[in-house]
Amino acid sequence: MIIKKIEGLIAAPFTPFDENGDLNLEQIPAYYQSLKSNQVKGGFICGSTGEGVSLTFQEKVAVVQAWSTLTKTDPDFKLIVLLGGTNIRECIELAKISEEEGVDAISFTSPFYFKPANVGQLAACCVEIAAAAPNTAFYYYHIPVLTGGNYPMIDLLKAVDGVIPNFAGIKYTHEDFMDFLSCMNFAGRKYDMLWGRDENMLSSLILGAKGAVGSTYNYAAPLYHDLISAFNAGDFERANALQQKSIDMITLLGKYGGISVGKTYMKLIGLDCGKFRLPIKNMSQEQFVAFQSDVAELEFASFSSK
Amino acid sequence: MIIKKIEGLIAAPFTPFDENGDLNLEQIPAYYQSLKSNQVKGGFICGSTGEGVSLTFQEKVAVVQAWSTLTKTDPDFKLIVLLGGTNIRECIELAKISEEEGVDAISFTSPFYFKPANVGQLAACCVEIAAAAPNTAFYYYHIPVLTGGNYPMIDLLKAVDGVIPNFAGIKYTHEDFMDFLSCMNFAGRKYDMLWGRDENMLSSLILGAKGAVGSTYNYAAPLYHDLISAFNAGDFERANALQQKSIDMITLLGKYGGISVGKTYMKLIGLDCGKFRLPIKNMSQEQFVAFQSDVAELEFASFSSK
Amino acid sequence: MIIKKIEGLIAAPFTPFDENGDLNLEQIPAYYQSLKSNQVKGGFICGSTGEGVSLTFQEKVAVVQAWSTLTKTDPDFKLIVLLGGTNIRECIELAKISEEEGVDAISFTSPFYFKPANVGQLAACCVEIAAAAPNTAFYYYHIPVLTGGNYPMIDLLKAVDGVIPNFAGIKYTHEDFMDFLSCMNFAGRKYDMLWGRDENMLSSLILGAKGAVGSTYNYAAPLYHDLISAFNAGDFERANALQQKSIDMITLLGKYGGISVGKTYMKLIGLDCGKFRLPIKNMSQEQFVAFQSDVAELEFASFSSK
Amino acid sequence: MIIKKIEGLIAAPFTPFDENGDLNLEQIPAYYQSLKSNQVKGGFICGSTGEGVSLTFQEKVAVVQAWSTLTKTDPDFKLIVLLGGTNIRECIELAKISEEEGVDAISFTSPFYFKPANVGQLAACCVEIAAAAPNTAFYYYHIPVLTGGNYPMIDLLKAVDGVIPNFAGIKYTHEDFMDFLSCMNFAGRKYDMLWGRDENMLSSLILGAKGAVGSTYNYAAPLYHDLISAFNAGDFERANALQQKSIDMITLLGKYGGISVGKTYMKLIGLDCGKFRLPIKNMSQEQFVAFQSDVAELEFASFSSK
Repeated sequence: MIIKKIEGLIAAPFTPFDENGDLNLEQIPAYYQSLKSNQVKGGFICGSTGEGVSLTFQEKVAVVQAWSTLTKTDPDFKLIVLLGGTNIRECIELAKISEEEGVDAISFTSPFYFKPANVGQLAACCVEIAAAAPNTAFYYYHIPVLTGGNYPMIDLLKAVDGVIPNFAGIKYTHEDFMDFLSCMNFAGRKYDMLWGRDENMLSSLILGAKGAVGSTYNYAAPLYHDLISAFNAGDFERANALQQKSIDMITLLGKYGGISVGKTYMKLIGLDCGKFRLPIKNMSQEQFVAFQSDVAELEFASFSSK
Repeated sequence: MIIKKIEGLIAAPFTPFDENGDLNLEQIPAYYQSLKSNQVKGGFICGSTGEGVSLTFQEKVAVVQAWSTLTKTDPDFKLIVLLGGTNIRECIELAKISEEEGVDAISFTSPFYFKPANVGQLAACCVEIAAAAPNTAFYYYHIPVLTGGNYPMIDLLKAVDGVIPNFAGIKYTHEDFMDFLSCMNFAGRKYDMLWGRDENMLSSLILGAKGAVGSTYNYAAPLYHDLISAFNAGDFERANALQQKSIDMITLLGKYGGISVGKTYMKLIGLDCGKFRLPIKNMSQEQFVAFQSDVAELEFASFSSK
Repeated sequence: MIIKKIEGLIAAPFTPFDENGDLNLEQIPAYYQSLKSNQVKGGFICGSTGEGVSLTFQEKVAVVQAWSTLTKTDPDFKLIVLLGGTNIRECIELAKISEEEGVDAISFTSPFYFKPANVGQLAACCVEIAAAAPNTAFYYYHIPVLTGGNYPMIDLLKAVDGVIPNFAGIKYTHEDFMDFLSCMNFAGRKYDMLWGRDENMLSSLILGAKGAVGSTYNYAAPLYHDLISAFNAGDFERANALQQKSIDMITLLGKYGGISVGKTYMKLIGLDCGKFRLPIKNMSQEQFVAFQSDVAELEFASFSSK
Repeated sequence: MIIKKIEGLIAAPFTPFDENGDLNLEQIPAYYQSLKSNQVKGGFICGSTGEGVSLTFQEKVAVVQAWSTLTKTDPDFKLIVLLGGTNIRECIELAKISEEEGVDAISFTSPFYFKPANVGQLAACCVEIAAAAPNTAFYYYHIPVLTGGNYPMIDLLKAVDGVIPNFAGIKYTHEDFMDFLSCMNFAGRKYDMLWGRDENMLSSLILGAKGAVGSTYNYAAPLYHDLISAFNAGDFERANALQQKSIDMITLLGKYGGISVGKTYMKLIGLDCGKFRLPIKNMSQEQFVAFQSDVAELEFASFSSK
C-alpha cells in the first residue's frame, strides 16, 4: 500500500453538541466549510479535541458518517478517524465501518487503562486493528500525557515495519524531538510523521515536518499558515513572533480551564459547538467575561480563522 | 435509601471467553455455583478483573444479564456492576439497564483519559450517573494505579454526602490506610468501605473492615475465610501466615505476566475462562509449565476454591 | 554481628535552630530529656524531620556529637544517624565518625539525584557504606515518596542477606504492606522492620511490627503508647479511635504547609526548635493563629508529650 | 549588573578520578586545553556530568580552584559552577568561594529531596543564594528529569525579574519548547537562555538560541560546530543529518548504561577521567568491547573532539 504523506494543517475538530449535550450533526457541514475556507487540509475526528472517549459507539459512527458524507468526494481533504485506545474490539468494529465509509485514515492510541507491557504488546494491538481496515491508512496516535503510554516511537516503527502494510505513520503529540527526528529519518523517511503540538510547531519544521494535526487549527489556521510561510521564507524573527502569539493563545486554555476553552474560541469564530461533556469542566459566565478581555488584548481576530 | 453494608468476600469475576475470544456466557452458571460453594457473598462484574474496558457495550449488557438472571432471586449474593469510567454517557445507559435488571449495586471509577480537574468534578460525574439508577446502591471504585485519579476519598465522601442519596460507599483498591480509616469513621460510619487489596486484607481487618472485593477470591476463597477466622479468633500468628500465603500466590501473578495469570489459576480450579484480550499478554505454554511447578510448591490445592 | 531488634517508639528529632537559622545545640539535652520522660526509646537524627539534607557536613557532625554525648551512656536509648543518600563519599565519612562516636546505628537512603539503576546497584551502595562502620548496625531507610527510589524491599533483603554482616533492617516509610510483611517474614524473621508511617501504625501492629520511627512521636508519644496498649489489650475500637486522633493531628500538617508544622507542634510542648530552612516554607503568623484554634479543637494537650 | 549573553558551546566537564576513585586534578589542565582546541567557550563544572552531587564539599572547592586557576585569565572561556540544589547552606558557602575565585557564573538547581512547594519558594532559594555572590552571574539550572522540580520557567523569570540583580538566565535541560520560547522572549529578551539538550539542539536554534550547555560537547564539539554552521548557512538537510548523528551517538549512552558512558567516550579522545562513582554503574569490560564496535560503525573519530 503506497501512502502519500500529508502536507499542511489537519484540524482535530470539536464534536458539536446541542443544548442538551446531544450530538448536533447539523453543525458539521458549516464546520467543514470553515476548515476549507481556511485552507485546512483535513480533519482528525473523534480525537482528544473531539471527545471521542466521551461519545457512545453509535455516536462515533454517526460522527464518522456525517463527516465522510462531506469529504469522500473531496480529494483535498483528508479524513482521519481516531478509533479509540482501550477497547480493541470496538476499535476493530469502528475500523471496519470507517473503511466502508471511505475515510482516508484510521488512528489508534495506546490503551490507557490496562497499559501494554511493552512496545511489542502495543504493536500487537496495532496489527489486529490495522488488519480490520486493510485498505485504509493507519496512523498511531502518540499522546503519552493522556494515555500514560510513553514508549519510544522509534521502537514502534521498528516493530511494525514490514509487518503492517497499511501503517502510514504517527500523529506525534509529545515533546521528544530526539525520538521524533529518529522516526522522521527511519527507513529512508518512509513514514509520515505528523506533528501534534501546535505550540511547538516551529521546532518541528526545522526537522523537516510537513504535516501537523492540532486543535488550534480549528480556529486560528491563518496564524499557522503565516508561521509556515515565514519559516519557508527564512524569516525566523517573524516565525518566532508568530509562534509566540500561538503560545499566548494557548496559555489562555490553561488559564481558563483547559481543553474546553477551545469550544469557547470556536464560538468567537461563529461556530457554536456547545459545551464539553463530563468529566471536563466548562468555563463559567464570569470566566467568559474575563476570557473575552484577554482575547481582545491578544488581538485574536487578527489571526483567527474566518 | 438505606443501604446495608456488605460483609464477607465479593469476588471480581473474570469474563469467560471461548477459543475465538468471544463471550462464553454458558460458563457463568458454573462460575456462580463455584462462588456459592465457596461462601463468596457476591460478584463485582465488568471490573478490572472482568476486563470491562475490553468488552463492547453490548457485551457488557449481555454479561450483566447473564449474571442477574442467576442472582436476582438470591438475596445472599450481591451483584455489583462496574459501569466504566471514561465514558459518562455509556455509564448512564448501563446504569439504567442495570437497574432494570435488578442488580444490587452499580459502580463507577475515575475517568482515565481526561482526568477530573479536582474532586468536585469527579463528584459531578458521580451525581449524574447515580441519578440514572436512583433505586440502586452506588459504589465509587477507587483504583488510582490504573486510572491515575488519586483523589483523597475522604474529600469525595464530603462532596457527595447529603447530595447523592444512593451513594453506598467505596471499593477501595489503594494502600492509603490513613485515607481509608478516615472514610471508615466519616459521618458516624455511614458508608460501606470495601477493601480491594487482597494482599493486604489483614491490615484492613484491624481497622474494622468487614467486606472485601478482590480477584483472588475467585479461586482462593478458603484461604481468606481462614484468614478472617484466625483474625477474629485473635490468632494473629496464623493470620500472618495465611496473609503471607496470599502474598506468595499473588507474587506469581507478577512473575508470570500480571492480571492474566488469574485466568490460569481459574483453570486449575476447573473453570476455563479462556484468555485475556489485548492489550493484556497471556502466558506462553513454556511459562505455564514453570507456573505449574511454582503452584505445586505453593500447595495451592490446599487452600484453593473447590 | 547479632542485632537486637528495637521495640517501642523511636522519634525522628527536629534539628533545633536559633533565630539566625544556625544550629542551637543547647536545646538538645532538654530535647533528650523530653523524649526520655515520654518513654521514647531512641532518636533517628539527621533524617527527613531533622533536615539532614539541609545541614552542612560539619553541622551534621556537630549534631551527632551533641546527641551521642547524651546517649552513649544510656543503653535504653538507641541513637540512629541518617548519613544521607546521594553523596556516598560523605556517607562513608559520616559513618566512620558515627562509629567513633559510639552511636547505635547508621542509616542510608536511596540516592535521589542519580537514582540507582536497579536494586543491585542500591545494594552496592549499602555494601560500601556499611563496611565503613562495621561494628555499627545499618538500617536502610525506605522513603520513596522523597527519594523516588521505589524498589521492593524484599529484593534488597535478598541482595544484602549474607553479604552485609551489620545489615540490621529497614526503616520502612511507605504504604506497601505486602512488601513490608514479606520483609518481616524473610529469613526466619531475621531483620528488624521499623514502621515509618505514624498515621498507619495500627495496620503495622497487626502484622507483628514492634518498633516504629516517626516524627509525631516527638510531640505526641502518649497517644501512640495508648494506641499500642489498646491493641495489645485487644481493644480495637479504642485503637481505632486513637489512630483516628493521630490522623486528625497529622492532617493539620497538610493544612498548614507540611513538614515544618511539626516544629510548631514542638513549640506547643515547650521545645522551641526554630524554623525549617529553605526550601521548606514556614507557617505565617496568621496561619499560626488558625492553627492554634484547630489544635485546641483537637484537644492536643490531652495526648501530647509532656 | 549587565550580563553578556553566552554564545557557542559550553561543555559540562566530567570530574577526573584516579584509580582509587579520588580526585585527579592533574588531568584538568589537559582537559581545559582540549576544550580550547575544540573551540568550546566554557565549562559548567560540578554539574550532573561532573558528578557534583557525588563530590564532598572540599572536593567541590578543589575542583573549582583547579579550573579557576586556568580560566580566570582567559576572557574567552566562561567558568560556571553548579553549587548544588538540596543543601542551601552549602550552596551559599560555595557561592562565596566561587566569587572569591573569580568564576564567571554560579548555578543552582531545584532542591530534590524536599521539593519547593511552588515557584515562589524556589525563587526564595534563588534570592538567598544569588545574594551570596552579588558580583557573579547566576543561572538557574532546570533539569526536572533529575530534580523532580518541574516548574514553568516563565513563572520563575516573572518571580525573580527585578528582584535578583545578578540573575542571568537559565540552563534549560528539558523539552518544553513552549516554555523555553516564552522565556527567550520575556522582558525584551533580557535573559540568557542556554539550551541543555544536545540531542535536540537544532530545534532550539530555530527559536533563536545562541548558547548551549551539554555533556557531549566534551568529546564531540566538532559535530555541533558543523551543525550550527549548517543551520546558519540554511542547509537544513545537512543540519538534520548532523543532529541524527548526535542522536545515534547519544543512543549508545542508553544502550551501555547511561551517563557513565560519557567517560568512556572521553577515553576514546585521549582523556582518561576514570570511572563514575556510586550510585552510577560503569560499563563492564565485555560491554566495552561491544561499545567499541558500535562506536566504529558510528564513525565517531570523524566528528569527535581532537
